[in-house]
Amino acid sequence: MSGAARAPDEERIARVALNRLAEPGDPRMASVVGELGAVAVRDHLLSERDLQGLATDVAGRLAALDPVGDLERAARRGIRFVVPGDEEWPAGLDDLAAAEPLQGSGGPPLGLWVRGPLPLSELASSVAVVGSRSSSMYGVQVAGDLAAGIAREGHGVVSGAAFGIDVAAHRGALGAQGVTVAVLACGVDRAYPLSHRALLDHLADHFAVVAETPPGCAPTKLRFLSRNRLIAALSRGTVVVEAADRSGALNTASWASRLHRAVMGVPGPVTSEPSVGVHELLRSGAGTLVTRAADVLELVGSAGDHLVEPRRAPERPRDRLPRRDRQVLDAVPLVRPAPSDAIARTAGMGLVEVRSTLERLAARSLVLGSAEGWRLAPEP
Amino acid sequence: MSGAARAPDEERIARVALNRLAEPGDPRMASVVGELGAVAVRDHLLSERDLQGLATDVAGRLAALDPVGDLERAARRGIRFVVPGDEEWPAGLDDLAAAEPLQGSGGPPLGLWVRGPLPLSELASSVAVVGSRSSSMYGVQVAGDLAAGIAREGHGVVSGAAFGIDVAAHRGALGAQGVTVAVLACGVDRAYPLSHRALLDHLADHFAVVAETPPGCAPTKLRFLSRNRLIAALSRGTVVVEAADRSGALNTASWASRLHRAVMGVPGPVTSEPSVGVHELLRSGAGTLVTRAADVLELVGSAGDHLVEPRRAPERPRDRLPRRDRQVLDAVPLVRPAPSDAIARTAGMGLVEVRSTLERLAARSLVLGSAEGWRLAPEP
Repeated sequence: MSGAARAPDEERIARVALNRLAEPGDPRMASVVGELGAVAVRDHLLSERDLQGLATDVAGRLAALDPVGDLERAARRGIRFVVPGDEEWPAGLDDLAAAEPLQGSGGPPLGLWVRGPLPLSELASSVAVVGSRSSSMYGVQVAGDLAAGIAREGHGVVSGAAFGIDVAAHRGALGAQGVTVAVLACGVDRAYPLSHRALLDHLADHFAVVAETPPGCAPTKLRFLSRNRLIAALSRGTVVVEAADRSGALNTASWASRLHRAVMGVPGPVTSEPSVGVHELLRSGAGTLVTRAADVLELVGSAGDHLVEPRRAPERPRDRLPRRDRQVLDAVPLVRPAPSDAIARTAGMGLVEVRSTLERLAARSLVLGSAEGWRLAPEP
Repeated sequence: MSGAARAPDEERIARVALNRLAEPGDPRMASVVGELGAVAVRDHLLSERDLQGLATDVAGRLAALDPVGDLERAARRGIRFVVPGDEEWPAGLDDLAAAEPLQGSGGPPLGLWVRGPLPLSELASSVAVVGSRSSSMYGVQVAGDLAAGIAREGHGVVSGAAFGIDVAAHRGALGAQGVTVAVLACGVDRAYPLSHRALLDHLADHFAVVAETPPGCAPTKLRFLSRNRLIAALSRGTVVVEAADRSGALNTASWASRLHRAVMGVPGPVTSEPSVGVHELLRSGAGTLVTRAADVLELVGSAGDHLVEPRRAPERPRDRLPRRDRQVLDAVPLVRPAPSDAIARTAGMGLVEVRSTLERLAARSLVLGSAEGWRLAPEP
C-alpha cells in the first residue's frame, strides 16, 4: 500500500471498532456511519448513558475493544483492513448504500479484512461464480470450465469457499492462470470448511481472501447471508451454476439483481435436484441463461468487448434460394438422374418453369444435367 | 360430420384443386384465396392464356386435376378435407393470415386433410411438444413425461411424427390416456418414417393425423417447413424439448412466436449437443424455460387455471424472526448449554438485550433454558 491513497487512520480505527461491535451487514450501522462518519458514531456510542446515568451496554462493549491492537495483530499476519477512501476500495461496494436490505442484511461494509496481495480494486471486472454445496459432478465440471473461460479472458472470479461449486470455480480459474478471490463468512485467518485450508492459503498467497467478519470470528448463518451481498457487489455479475431450492447462491443472485448487476444461471437436466433453483431463477425471468464463458462475458463485458457469435451451422448456397427454386431442387434426385417432366410432377410445378429453374440451378452448380436428365450436384 | 356446419361443396372442391396446384404454405396462394375465395381464383387461373393465346402451364395443370375424385377416393379411406366454414375448422389457423411468412412459407392452409375421428376444433387448448430427431435418452424421457403431464390435465398434444422427441411426446400422451395428434409433411395416408406406421395408424384410429400436403404426396424439406407453422398454429403454445442448431423444432418455435403463442424450452446439460438450440432460444429471450407440465400449463392455460406453486422448502419458525433475534439464535449451541454472557459474546451483542431475546426465543420453543444455560430446542 506504500504511496497509495489511504483513508485517515482515525477513521480506519473507528471502523475497526464498529465492525467488531456490530454484526456484518447491519444496515442501521452502515447507514449511520455513512451519514456521520465512523469517528462521530463511535464517540456518540461511547458517551451513551442509561436512565441511571451509567454507561450503556453498547458503550461498555465498545470501550472494551482494542481496534489499534486488532489492526497491529492483523498486520503481523499479513491482513489489512480496507476502508472507503483507500485507493483499492472497490467502488462497487458503495452501490450497497442505495440497495434495500434483504433478510435483514444490507448496506456497504464498514471495511473489509483482506489477506493477500491483490488490490481489491482489481476485481472491478470480475464475475461471481456461485452455487450449491450439494453439487453434482456435472455442476462441478461446468463451474470449473466456466470459471476457466472467464479467467482466460482476463476477468477475475469471485466466490465463497464452500464445497462444490465455489471450490470448483476457484480451481477452474487457477487452472487457467487466472485471478480468483474467496469471500468468507468467517475471519480471513480461518478456514471453513477446514479441508479448504490449503486452497485458501494459496488464494491468500497469490490473490486475496476477503471478509467483513473480523479475524478470528466464526461463520454464522447471518454472516453467510451478509457475505453473499459482498460477492454480488464486488463483481460485475453473478452466475449461479447449481442451486437447490433454498441455496445461498440464490440469495447472492438476489443481491446481484438488487445491485443491477447481471444475474445468470447455467441450466442442467430438469431431473437434477441441484438445478431446480437455477431453473426457477431462469423461469421467473430473474436471470439470463448462460451456457459458456462467452455468454457470461457478453453480459458483463464492456459494451462490444464480447459479442457472442450465435452458434449456427454454416449456411449452404441452397439456403438462400428463392422458394420456387428450392421447391424444384427438392424434387431433383440425389443419384439417378430424372427427366425434367418427372421433376415437374414431383415438384407440383409447371414444366416450363421447372426447365428454366433447372438451367438456373445448373449455372450455380447445384444440379447436374445429362442426357438421362437431372440429378443433384455433390455438395462442395 | 353429419349435422355439423359445413362449407359449401363448390368452395371445398376448388380448395382441393388449388391445394394440389400450389405447394403447402405458398403465401401468395393463401392470400389471394383469402381475398377472392377459392372458386374465383380457380376460375381465373383456368382461363389464363399466354401471349400465343394458349392455356398457360398453370391453367393446363389445373384443368388436369380431379378434385371431386380426390375427395371421393380420400373419403373411401376415411380421410376428409377440412376447410374454413366447417364447424371443426380450428380458429387458430386463421391467425396465420396476419403473420409474416418465414423462409417462404406462410398463410393459412387452403384446407387440412384429416384421418381420424377427432374434430380439429378440439385442439384449441392443445400444446405442441417438438424437438430433435437426434435426441438423447434424457430428451426422450423428458418429452414423454411432459406430454403425459399435459395430457393428464386435459390438454391435447400436437407434434410431428419424426424419430426422437416427436414420437416420445405422442407415446407420453398415449400412456396418460390423453389426446395426441400428428401433423405430417406428407400425405396422411403415408408413414414417414416408415417405422412409425403403427403409431400413425393408432393415432388415426383414435384421434387424428393431419396434413396440408394432399394424400399420396411425399415429404420434402419445404413441406416440413410449411408443416411446422401448422403445429404452431393448431396449439396454444410450443415446447421445444431438445433441438440442435438448425433443428426444425426451432422453426416451429419461431412460428409460435410469430403467432403470439407461448414459446417454451426445456433445458438440459450445457454439455449436451441436442440442447444447444434450446439454450440459445432461452438465452435470447425468445422462449421461457419450463421444467414440468405445470410450468407449461401456467403459460398456456386460461388465466388462473394453472398457477404454479413456486417450489420452496417449508418455511421454519426461525425464518421469520427479526434480525437481532436470529443473531442471538445463531449463537446458541446445539448440544452443550452455554450461559447467556457467553452467548452475548458469540453474538457480538449486549448482555441485557441477549437475555431478553433468549426469554423471547424460549417462549417460542426455539431455545431451552436450564441451570447450565441455553441450548437450541430440537426442531419439531
